[in-house]
Parts: sequence; C-alpha cells; structure tokens
Amino acid sequence: MPYVNIKVTREGGPDGTGPSAEQKAQLITGVTDLLQDVLGKNPATTFVVIDEVPLEDWGVGGLPVQEYRKQAQ
Amino acid sequence: MPYVNIKVTREGGPDGTGPSAEQKAQLITGVTDLLQDVLGKNPATTFVVIDEVPLEDWGVGGLPVQEYRKQAQ
Amino acid sequence: MPYVNIKVTREGGPDGTGPSAEQKAQLITGVTDLLQDVLGKNPATTFVVIDEVPLEDWGVGGLPVQEYRKQAQ
Amino acid sequence: MPYVNIKVTREGGPDGTGPSAEQKAQLITGVTDLLQDVLGKNPATTFVVIDEVPLEDWGVGGLPVQEYRKQAQ
Amino acid sequence: MPYVNIKVTREGGPDGTGPSAEQKAQLITGVTDLLQDVLGKNPATTFVVIDEVPLEDWGVGGLPVQEYRKQAQ
Amino acid sequence: MPYVNIKVTREGGPDGTGPSAEQKAQLITGVTDLLQDVLGKNPATTFVVIDEVPLEDWGVGGLPVQEYRKQAQ
Repeated sequence: MPYVNIKVTREGGPDGTGPSAEQKAQLITGVTDLLQDVLGKNPATTFVVIDEVPLEDWGVGGLPVQEYRKQAQ
Repeated sequence: MPYVNIKVTREGGPDGTGPSAEQKAQLITGVTDLLQDVLGKNPATTFVVIDEVPLEDWGVGGLPVQEYRKQAQ
Repeated sequence: MPYVNIKVTREGGPDGTGPSAEQKAQLITGVTDLLQDVLGKNPATTFVVIDEVPLEDWGVGGLPVQEYRKQAQ
Repeated sequence: MPYVNIKVTREGGPDGTGPSAEQKAQLITGVTDLLQDVLGKNPATTFVVIDEVPLEDWGVGGLPVQEYRKQAQ
Repeated sequence: MPYVNIKVTREGGPDGTGPSAEQKAQLITGVTDLLQDVLGKNPATTFVVIDEVPLEDWGVGGLPVQEYRKQAQ
Repeated sequence: MPYVNIKVTREGGPDGTGPSAEQKAQLITGVTDLLQDVLGKNPATTFVVIDEVPLEDWGVGGLPVQEYRKQAQ
C-alpha cells in the first residue's frame, strides 16, 4: 500500500519544458515494479504522484538551481 | 495544531476541470470540524492545503490513472 | 483517488501520549466519507496517512509549540 | 543532507501575484544558511523546494483563507 | 535534482517488522537508476527518503489498513 | 500563513543521536524570522514541522547515505 511522491525540476523532456507524459508513465511503471519486486507490494494499491517544480522554486547550495549551475561551471 | 494535506486528481467538479472553490471550502470545513470533534483540535490552528494533481501525474497499478481506468473496464 | 496526510502533535488521547488507535480510525473514516460526499471519491482508492509529530518538532509563532503556549497564557 | 519544503499562499510579492524570484532566492539562501549555522549542514546537499498555494486551496479556521480573514476583521 | 519520498506500511521484511536495511537500499538504488534512465537525472543530486508508517496510521477504504484487509477477505 | 517542513538525517547534535531540542528551537525561530523578513508573514500563523530521518532511510547517489559517504571518501 505504498505512496510515492517524485519531485523533479520542470525542465528537459522532448521540448525542454519538462518530462513528457510518456516519460512520466515510465516513472510510474518503474517505481511500481520496483516496490513489487523488492517488497512484494501490490501494484493495485501503489499510488505515485509526480510534481514538476519550476526552476525558480528549487534551491541547492543556497541558490536557485539555475544560479547554482552557473556558479558550478 | 494540525496540518492536513489533501491531494486529488484534477478532474470532476462543475465543469470537469477539478473541484470548485465551493467544494474545496466544504473539504476545508469538513476536515477541520472532524479534527475538532475527534481530537478537540482548535480550528484557528488547523491548516488545510489542497493540491490538485494533473491526471498524467497520478499513477496507480503501475499506470497513469487514465490508462489504469481504461484497462480496469 | 485521493491521498490525505494528517499531521497532529503527539499529545492528548486517552493517556496523554497521542491519539488512540480508535481516534485515528475515526479520522480515517471521517475524511474518507467527506471526500466521498463532497467529490464522489471512491473510498477503495482513498489513502489516509496520519503522522504524530513530537512536540519539540512542531513550531508556531517562532517557538516550539510548548513554549508558544506558555507565552500565550 | 537536509530537505526543506516551504509552502506559502500565492499572494503578495511585487505585483500581488506571489513572491518574486528574488524573494524566493532570499528564502533559499536564508534557510540554507540557517541549517549550516545551527546544524553544520553542507549547503551543497541542502535542497529547498518552494510551493505557492492558490488562496482557495489553503484553509484555516475551517474556512478558505480569504473568508477567514474577512471574518477575523 | 529529484527528490523522492516513498511511504510504506511498517510490516513485512525479514522479521515482519518492516523492510530491512538491505531492502531499503534496493529501493534507493532502484528509484535513483530509474530517474537516471528515464530523465537523465544525476544520481549525486537525487535524494530518496523512505518513511515506514505504522499500520494504525494508514487508512484505505475508510478503515485502518488491517481492518480493511479483514473485511476484504 | 506558511507551512515549512524541514527533514534532516538523525545524526549529529550534542550526543550524536540527532539535533537537540535547543537546536530545533533555533531552526524554528530562524525560519519563522526569515519568512517574516522576506515576505512579511505573520509568525503566529507560521507552522514549522521538523522530521528526523534515520540514516538507513535517506539515500543519495543511489546509496543509503552512510554507504555514499564511505564511497565518497
């Protein structure tokens, strides 16, 4: 009866604006399979929720992620 | 001093695009009353946050929810 | 297909150490009914997860909750 | 290796539609510094995610926040 | 720069008290690999947090999960 | 009306078993002040919840954090 929340930055994907519906479906299938393989969890009661987070809302190293990447170069 | 987070798929409601503001208000009132009735929690310090999740971002049974429903038919 | 997370401070309940199993069951039933009544959500796909948070881990007004209550008196 | 999630109502900021990118950057810097100062956490492994919540999705006192404020006046 | 939270009921595992450390490591590896394979995410900035939830704190079908399973039989 | 959740690994602090109550109080005060300074948020309606996560439940780089640190040396 697992619940999985996956947060990713809204970027990449086929047109640079975030994961495609197909990529999200792959994440859903993959993590559900993983929970079945490792812990025997029933897929029918495995929920997966994906959140796309705008780049300005994600920080690392004390900076918004885009600033962080510039400085890391 | 409770904090409640309610996640629902973005669908249904008066025009099919998700719960209306009035329905959300009913959820807020209902869960706040529940916490007061069962645990004596003060409504003034009960926070409720509702998240509407796009259908392609919600998975169950290893599939995005719309695919899952098609297969379940 | 809702997911509800309820966070409450670990206090109160029959012996002062937090909600009883029976009180938690009432929260689960109550919020599931609410989602069915307001949005027509199917209870079989409504998940509820309750977290009890130690008092020293909950802050309000810039203070741990117990300090806050002392000052509010 | 901290993870911080900050949820605020979508309001205020320079044009009333929520915090500006600069204000969000200040939150990211401030909370990352705080975790370094108090607990010695490495900024490079401190993630901060900010969520802006529409006003109709935030409840307090059993009401959506805007209704609550009207009644509190 | 993903963040993944996996919530499972505290049960099963080698001695019935929840997933073993080895099983958790498999979940961490598996979901990190998945995000690298599907979205090209860097494992070094992929965080995974696993929460074990006591059975009495998890509800489905309007009941604590153990009650729900009894009735589903 | 902010809600802040801070997740840290359960380690460090005065006796190596995690942040002390005093350190947690400093986090609560610091992040509440930050939200007041940057966004003008009222401390009385700012909630902070701290979660200590066991080391085996936190993954980075595809490994539980302790394994990751060993390999990073």
